[in-house]
Amino acid sequence: MSKTLHLGLFLMANGHHFGGWRHPQAEVTRHLDLQAYAEIARKAEAACLDMIFIADRLAVDDIYAGDFREAVRYRPSTSAEPITLIAALSALTRHIGLAATASTTYNEPFHVARMFASIDHLSGGRIAWNAVTSTSDGEAHNFSRSEHLERTSRYRRAGEFIQVVKGLWRSWGKDAVLADKLSGEFYDPQAVHYLDHQGEWFQVRGPLNVPSTPQGRPVVIQAGQSEDFRDLAASEADVIFTVQPTLAGAKDFYADLKARAQRAGRAPESLKIMPGLVPLVGRSQAQAEELQAQLKERTHPLAGLTFMSASMNYDLSQHPLDELFPDIIDKLKGSRGRFEVVIRDARERGLSLAQVAQNYAANRSHNLLVGTAEHIADHMQQWLEEGACDGFNLMPAYMPAGLDDFLERVVPELQRRGLFRSQYSGSTLRENLGLALPA
Amino acid sequence: MSKTLHLGLFLMANGHHFGGWRHPQAEVTRHLDLQAYAEIARKAEAACLDMIFIADRLAVDDIYAGDFREAVRYRPSTSAEPITLIAALSALTRHIGLAATASTTYNEPFHVARMFASIDHLSGGRIAWNAVTSTSDGEAHNFSRSEHLERTSRYRRAGEFIQVVKGLWRSWGKDAVLADKLSGEFYDPQAVHYLDHQGEWFQVRGPLNVPSTPQGRPVVIQAGQSEDFRDLAASEADVIFTVQPTLAGAKDFYADLKARAQRAGRAPESLKIMPGLVPLVGRSQAQAEELQAQLKERTHPLAGLTFMSASMNYDLSQHPLDELFPDIIDKLKGSRGRFEVVIRDARERGLSLAQVAQNYAANRSHNLLVGTAEHIADHMQQWLEEGACDGFNLMPAYMPAGLDDFLERVVPELQRRGLFRSQYSGSTLRENLGLALPA
Repeated sequence: MSKTLHLGLFLMANGHHFGGWRHPQAEVTRHLDLQAYAEIARKAEAACLDMIFIADRLAVDDIYAGDFREAVRYRPSTSAEPITLIAALSALTRHIGLAATASTTYNEPFHVARMFASIDHLSGGRIAWNAVTSTSDGEAHNFSRSEHLERTSRYRRAGEFIQVVKGLWRSWGKDAVLADKLSGEFYDPQAVHYLDHQGEWFQVRGPLNVPSTPQGRPVVIQAGQSEDFRDLAASEADVIFTVQPTLAGAKDFYADLKARAQRAGRAPESLKIMPGLVPLVGRSQAQAEELQAQLKERTHPLAGLTFMSASMNYDLSQHPLDELFPDIIDKLKGSRGRFEVVIRDARERGLSLAQVAQNYAANRSHNLLVGTAEHIADHMQQWLEEGACDGFNLMPAYMPAGLDDFLERVVPELQRRGLFRSQYSGSTLRENLGLALPA
Repeated sequence: MSKTLHLGLFLMANGHHFGGWRHPQAEVTRHLDLQAYAEIARKAEAACLDMIFIADRLAVDDIYAGDFREAVRYRPSTSAEPITLIAALSALTRHIGLAATASTTYNEPFHVARMFASIDHLSGGRIAWNAVTSTSDGEAHNFSRSEHLERTSRYRRAGEFIQVVKGLWRSWGKDAVLADKLSGEFYDPQAVHYLDHQGEWFQVRGPLNVPSTPQGRPVVIQAGQSEDFRDLAASEADVIFTVQPTLAGAKDFYADLKARAQRAGRAPESLKIMPGLVPLVGRSQAQAEELQAQLKERTHPLAGLTFMSASMNYDLSQHPLDELFPDIIDKLKGSRGRFEVVIRDARERGLSLAQVAQNYAANRSHNLLVGTAEHIADHMQQWLEEGACDGFNLMPAYMPAGLDDFLERVVPELQRRGLFRSQYSGSTLRENLGLALPA
């Protein structure tokens, strides 16, 4: 069988382009409305997408100028909480996978293991956990810390956190349920195990108070591209989301991560790599470019800079908007992998802070494809066939029209080419992703 | 208008009686099945109940004999996680309130404030948070603590935790949304505020990253009866769940809590008191008693003792099953209020460990009513009219038949008497409970 794509919908209720909510066709103020999410989820399920994914932050961005004012003024900078949102959506969908982000920096592994196991049961095996390290002091300040954990500590903590969560998911064997009314025995104690984890960051005895889940365990996603990230993700993740704006870079990353997975004793196909993709679909190339221009002119520079500052954990307000983007790579205490590329590129091309902010606000340095459905499908096909990805995490620029354009025009084109399913083959997310049950 | 009842369904998927899952009519192994919960929720909504409530523990009980074996063997001792469960149920219901427990001992206030605010939006204002202090070392061991926090510390922590959660819920004003596509302003920064909480247990800057919710804030429940509990609940709770097996005791508690609320500057009607009630409904008194006997003979003593040990945070396995219940009140490091009554009563009546365990397994010392619908309605009416409660938290002994019996027979009787609504009057839980919007 020739290789086919896996497609996730990276869902932001107001779209990924920071000018997207101002587009005349955009629906706004529905980012806390379950009916709006339900409509989107049903469309994505009708198109047979693998999953819907919800990102997360644990604060209103307030690194820029040390305050939240500009972030709330220029962006719809709040959202539904991801775990509760996918729990609600699990009740309104039947086939599509549902992925939520939960931080390993400001959470307890027992809560995370349990909530995702619980939704995995309620959804019939359609859940994934995106395990992230948090990035900003703003988040630290909401969890009784004066500043954010530094990079190597937070990756060590993330590694141990994921181990504990997986250990708790393994603490119940598949055959624990007896439910014998006659003998009065409900569970078989032989099938349940203490974890007894004693580590640097966590001491967790277990067992979990949720039995083994329909997928064996929920699918584990990690998102990133930095060096710190790669070894951890190659060992622990089932799926990787990543920022890869170029084909060459994506191929390098793909080859590197698959090789690292093999060195960690894993089959390369047990790790699915799905770069982000912002599609601007037009009936003609000119129409797509017109859309791009419309969105760009609606983007306030501070919408981009407030977001970037929180991601970098670095206050960009100390630099003038119209001067060359400063060389601050070594000063970033938050996300770093993607910003090394952004900053190097900005300085090579002589871009100002305002210009970088406008570009970043369009696609957050993800792959931006502007053109007809055929053009976008060509690109996706090339990336798949040349070993740059196993699929894409779709980031519609504005909602719901930006999603509709992709589902109604690009998905049928991919299906015609035999690159994407037209019905679900499995009943769990793990099956639809082509991942084996965990041992 | 004469006073009417508020009714909550305290939902345990396998029923509250520990012999309930073994009853021939009981449906078992559905405690992680969303369809089973959906069926129950729709019935409860059709009967116009105020809310469905989910309790919680953060461990498989393992205090008895220092191990989980007997707890998992004799009880369906796992469940869906409450917050994810009510989020899923919010998508499948339209009117009924949904209440979940979250511990103040092993959580972060930012996560709790955010998740409940998120579901309050998704549900259109039907959410309540039951703020509890956890009880056992088994829970501590799942959160990197060697032993459980002692009583006065955990009540101090609970008080501060609730203050922080409420503060975060107040960090967004009602009129924050501008969503002005023309000007590009989404939120009004003047309507958003830092909390800047600096306390003994928590330092939380805020603001929350979820705006003001449909109910102003989710309804806050507290459950208990001890002295430590009373002042905190009288200041902070909208609803109190409590163990009150006798009319006289319930009246004392009711009068005391309402008086404490007034001393804390609150209107007495702003605090609703709902004792637990286990109804065993028969077509005749004899049939109800027969049901009681059937359930009792299906109760293994260890089902009760493993649960009691975890609640008490005291290992009861060190005492013989057939000797007088020991005087251990001063040794309890977990729940205490209800067990002072249980133990004093056991010693007065000369009950053994096994006998107390069997009694406790039937109703966990809550009010147990055995009889016809008329008999049960009489009792409920008397409690309401004599000032012992504002309603009840219903605890069906086995599922779903134990719930069906109540909804199909007792609820219509209460409606005939004008004691309970036959349609929802409000659109939020707060409105249906008759609670004012918070200032």
